[in-house]
Amino acid sequence: MATLKIGIIGAGRIGKIHADNLLRHPNAEVVAVSDLFAGPELEAWAAARGIGLLTKESADLIHHPDIDAVFICSSTDTHVPLIKQAAQAGKHIFCEKPISMEIERTEEALEAVRKAGVKLQVGFNRRFDHNFKRVKEHVESGTIGVPHIVKITSRDPSPPPEAYIRTSGGLFMDMAIHDFDMARFLSGSEVVEVFAQGGVLVDPVFAECGDIDTAVITLKFANGAFGVIDNSRKAAYGYDQRVEVFGSKGAVAAANDFPNSAVVSTEAGISSDKPLHFFLERYAQAYEDEARQFIDSLANGTPVPVDGEDGLQAERIALAAKWSFRLNRVVKLDEIAELRSLQAN
Amino acid sequence: MATLKIGIIGAGRIGKIHADNLLRHPNAEVVAVSDLFAGPELEAWAAARGIGLLTKESADLIHHPDIDAVFICSSTDTHVPLIKQAAQAGKHIFCEKPISMEIERTEEALEAVRKAGVKLQVGFNRRFDHNFKRVKEHVESGTIGVPHIVKITSRDPSPPPEAYIRTSGGLFMDMAIHDFDMARFLSGSEVVEVFAQGGVLVDPVFAECGDIDTAVITLKFANGAFGVIDNSRKAAYGYDQRVEVFGSKGAVAAANDFPNSAVVSTEAGISSDKPLHFFLERYAQAYEDEARQFIDSLANGTPVPVDGEDGLQAERIALAAKWSFRLNRVVKLDEIAELRSLQAN
Amino acid sequence: MATLKIGIIGAGRIGKIHADNLLRHPNAEVVAVSDLFAGPELEAWAAARGIGLLTKESADLIHHPDIDAVFICSSTDTHVPLIKQAAQAGKHIFCEKPISMEIERTEEALEAVRKAGVKLQVGFNRRFDHNFKRVKEHVESGTIGVPHIVKITSRDPSPPPEAYIRTSGGLFMDMAIHDFDMARFLSGSEVVEVFAQGGVLVDPVFAECGDIDTAVITLKFANGAFGVIDNSRKAAYGYDQRVEVFGSKGAVAAANDFPNSAVVSTEAGISSDKPLHFFLERYAQAYEDEARQFIDSLANGTPVPVDGEDGLQAERIALAAKWSFRLNRVVKLDEIAELRSLQAN
Amino acid sequence: MATLKIGIIGAGRIGKIHADNLLRHPNAEVVAVSDLFAGPELEAWAAARGIGLLTKESADLIHHPDIDAVFICSSTDTHVPLIKQAAQAGKHIFCEKPISMEIERTEEALEAVRKAGVKLQVGFNRRFDHNFKRVKEHVESGTIGVPHIVKITSRDPSPPPEAYIRTSGGLFMDMAIHDFDMARFLSGSEVVEVFAQGGVLVDPVFAECGDIDTAVITLKFANGAFGVIDNSRKAAYGYDQRVEVFGSKGAVAAANDFPNSAVVSTEAGISSDKPLHFFLERYAQAYEDEARQFIDSLANGTPVPVDGEDGLQAERIALAAKWSFRLNRVVKLDEIAELRSLQAN
Repeated sequence: MATLKIGIIGAGRIGKIHADNLLRHPNAEVVAVSDLFAGPELEAWAAARGIGLLTKESADLIHHPDIDAVFICSSTDTHVPLIKQAAQAGKHIFCEKPISMEIERTEEALEAVRKAGVKLQVGFNRRFDHNFKRVKEHVESGTIGVPHIVKITSRDPSPPPEAYIRTSGGLFMDMAIHDFDMARFLSGSEVVEVFAQGGVLVDPVFAECGDIDTAVITLKFANGAFGVIDNSRKAAYGYDQRVEVFGSKGAVAAANDFPNSAVVSTEAGISSDKPLHFFLERYAQAYEDEARQFIDSLANGTPVPVDGEDGLQAERIALAAKWSFRLNRVVKLDEIAELRSLQAN
Repeated sequence: MATLKIGIIGAGRIGKIHADNLLRHPNAEVVAVSDLFAGPELEAWAAARGIGLLTKESADLIHHPDIDAVFICSSTDTHVPLIKQAAQAGKHIFCEKPISMEIERTEEALEAVRKAGVKLQVGFNRRFDHNFKRVKEHVESGTIGVPHIVKITSRDPSPPPEAYIRTSGGLFMDMAIHDFDMARFLSGSEVVEVFAQGGVLVDPVFAECGDIDTAVITLKFANGAFGVIDNSRKAAYGYDQRVEVFGSKGAVAAANDFPNSAVVSTEAGISSDKPLHFFLERYAQAYEDEARQFIDSLANGTPVPVDGEDGLQAERIALAAKWSFRLNRVVKLDEIAELRSLQAN
Repeated sequence: MATLKIGIIGAGRIGKIHADNLLRHPNAEVVAVSDLFAGPELEAWAAARGIGLLTKESADLIHHPDIDAVFICSSTDTHVPLIKQAAQAGKHIFCEKPISMEIERTEEALEAVRKAGVKLQVGFNRRFDHNFKRVKEHVESGTIGVPHIVKITSRDPSPPPEAYIRTSGGLFMDMAIHDFDMARFLSGSEVVEVFAQGGVLVDPVFAECGDIDTAVITLKFANGAFGVIDNSRKAAYGYDQRVEVFGSKGAVAAANDFPNSAVVSTEAGISSDKPLHFFLERYAQAYEDEARQFIDSLANGTPVPVDGEDGLQAERIALAAKWSFRLNRVVKLDEIAELRSLQAN
Repeated sequence: MATLKIGIIGAGRIGKIHADNLLRHPNAEVVAVSDLFAGPELEAWAAARGIGLLTKESADLIHHPDIDAVFICSSTDTHVPLIKQAAQAGKHIFCEKPISMEIERTEEALEAVRKAGVKLQVGFNRRFDHNFKRVKEHVESGTIGVPHIVKITSRDPSPPPEAYIRTSGGLFMDMAIHDFDMARFLSGSEVVEVFAQGGVLVDPVFAECGDIDTAVITLKFANGAFGVIDNSRKAAYGYDQRVEVFGSKGAVAAANDFPNSAVVSTEAGISSDKPLHFFLERYAQAYEDEARQFIDSLANGTPVPVDGEDGLQAERIALAAKWSFRLNRVVKLDEIAELRSLQAN
């Protein structure tokens, strides 16, 4: 297998994680990194990893003749233009979620990808989680029969900073979008209806930003199954990421991961440690695996495991959820265009 | 404490359970039982328990001068008339759920109870379950802070017979009504909005009966919290009864009960036995405790732990859920009267 | 099935438990109770249960013409004479463990039982525990193949009073004797060698009484398997009763029982309640089941589930353990007679 | 922190693991590897990692002027001479367990290390396991009070090949030695007495090799606590590595690690996957952490976390266990010298 040369656009937390994971891949080489805030700190970081090119310009990577693929880890508003440019330059693309917060723009990006014939993988890392993968395997192998109800609990340990909230796209597009993808992944079916409830129960800052911090979302799938998602921006006991699929022959459920299995029994009761802190800990292996599979897909000419259509569908569900919450009614996925035109007027 | 003399109306499965539990209570004496189908078998049953009077006529109990209280365990359609008669006769009343399937009739019954100044307890036995009681204690003591999300999983091991389905009042009124009461119990707040989804995924017989077998219901509480209930008439692995309350300081969750704690580890994996089979096993102690507390309330002059208002509220939520499912939209609890009048036209 | 008439000798805690359990049995009637300390309190207790005869004299029961069987629940030193008298009087016998603290005397009692042709059941209640029974079933059905290692954890929540310790016969004869029986029960084999270590780690009062409070005992079974028992008179977190059988095809383990399944997750960690407090709570059902099966054995003419030989073997292991601890060496079960004669000299 | 240059002696499975872990350490550089069987395959392996020197001669590493420390991962019989040579050459040493199978030879090696003033860490990787570390923390912080009983379950998924068994040193020296170290680690005390039972229950090949495959070992610690270890060469359900420390204020226990948390509930029962397969999977992070801490100790001039004395003590316990098993009696640790001289005669 030839070594693939990778450029990473955006060297924030997630960009650095991808870089380190790629460095461990026998067939990938990180040859360049671009970041708007490239400076001495990033230079040291790149040097320690033997990354030859550090630049402020993403174009330097996109038009670099040696680069086979780019990882787009910059802010969400840059995703669509960068995807278009990269596609036109013939580079394969790994893009963090969401592709964009406007479905039309996401569709434009996907169109550019299709035209260019490059590959695009979207960063729904949770599909690669050891627990959720195992749940999916059981669903696919028929262990639990036909799925009837998909339940997803997805709660963060603590809210992001206000600055993040303001540009996040809101709970549905920023946080629940992972769960929408998980719902499609686990049910093996498309969402046709959404009902979203929510409120500000954690911190008034969310209200000030026009956002919510708590939500309960129900889904109806094309295959007749139902979905339930509950979200909170603050679980005092830490990152809470569980799923359950209930079907005609049984159920399969995945619990949280914990830093250790030690259980203490004293006069005060039985106790153990909280779950792994947050997504970096819980999904460390999943991040590595999604990057590895992207590289392998390029090397082997096989389809990427999460493609642009997966990105688009999750965005459509998120949009329907926003409308449902706003209107306090069920929203069908095929109403989205109409609702948007209504809004425009 | 003086011994209270009890009459049991309806000696089906649940009536017999109450009888046996009352026989164990030091201050209760079951002096009479009425059942439409009283015959040799019931006579033997009553004789073995030293129950002096067995009759086909509930009136024999209601007007029996020695009887202090009646347990109404006959079919749902008899509840309201029997409550009214018993109240007028000055008897205290324990009535199985639901009081009726029409809110106006339930209100009539409650009015009769109020006028007579007798006590009425409704058979929401799950409030007395050791697990759910402990969850409630943690919610009340503030362990988990302010409740944000109440989650209830409530699935039966297998569907009831068709004859039962036809007169059950439907999934919302027959099965989910327990969960509606649990939602009020755990949240400590009233439900203000309901959204109910559902379908026939288990057995077409439900469709033939105009019923559903699978449902996902979301609730909005007056205190701003949310609720999620999922129901199925058939969990292949047995009776699935779990709750979780998530709040500002954490969460408390109760799992199923199991017949034993044995865990087998072999080359095939790790395995253990299914949950306790069904409500008779899971809630055996809860049935005993609700009867005991009813007797104690009468003896001590304290309020009953689950009163007529609790019965009424659960029925109102069930009704809202039925409307929500029918209309595929959110229904507010205070819309019920209006929706009924619309229907009438 | 005819009703069996039962007399209970010794109305302490355990005698009362047996009485209440027998009262629930459809084919048993407790007609008489004897207790050295019979007085107004016991009279009230007996009256409330409809027990016609309360006496200070066990002979009144043993020679009562209507009584079919006696439950010997008096102090251990009375067991052998009472068994002999009851056997000679043709009464079936349920006797609490141990039969005696001297093997020769136990053998005398068994000989009397054999001669009289009556039945004798010994109170090893743990064999009837829902968890341990399930483990045994898996062992017997071959789920785990041939047993290699039997592990028993058996720890009390707190030490008994000093007065009890002084006459208890010591940790091996009083406490571990249950575990010796469990080891035989689970392994399906006889113990051939014992090595017992122990010390006073909990409370110096044990040393003052010539006893120990902590022990680790290993066993070798005739079938080649090994056993490990660990005992403590004080587990701060409550009654700890677990077993594990490891074999050629896997392992089966039973955990503790808990008062509820509620799990609390907060910033401080994950926590739940301690196990059921002590033997009365943990083995409540087992006590009922052993009495029921004794009655059923009498009624049906089938063998009792735990017989005199089981009582004797457990005492022999306990004696070997005492010697092993004293000599700090392995003791073979067939050395016991010799060691006792050595001691006599 | 300057980069430390490392040479690895023995590029078998464990040597390669250390190499890869060191490659991830920011302050370590693997500059040379020696292996008796160095050939094209190892050359490719070394080249892919940028390791400049591959040789058949360990002396090339030991006398290499640039090398700061060596990892001795060759067969056990080479450990002592290599430690001596490396110490004399002034290299720090990480040595796999056991140092040797003869205490006098281990003492010679330690003496050489002391004289040379170099550091020696022994590969008791389990001390670095996330679960056992957490147990140790609770013991040290006093959560469970004074330790009374240390229980260790340590079972392999399947026996090693016969060739390995023949030179392994036997179950006590090869397998249980890890548990002896764990017992010292968790109890915080030295072992003073050992009683070891064992047999061939898994595979007659062990008998043919003069070894056993199943053992139950009890320990007495200097601080009065007791220890219990059970070992098997074959747990059908996989690698079983659990510990429990019971003390005056409670207990802390660590369970196995699993590849995922998925639980399946069907009509057949509740099931989940087996534990992580074997030591490479279970202790992957522990291997990385022990290497990291060794490097950090060298870099920071702090003591190594597991030193030669730890290696020696575990070997002494293993030796006592061998004697105990052979003699079927308790062996005191200070009897070892005498027993060896007896044997010599």
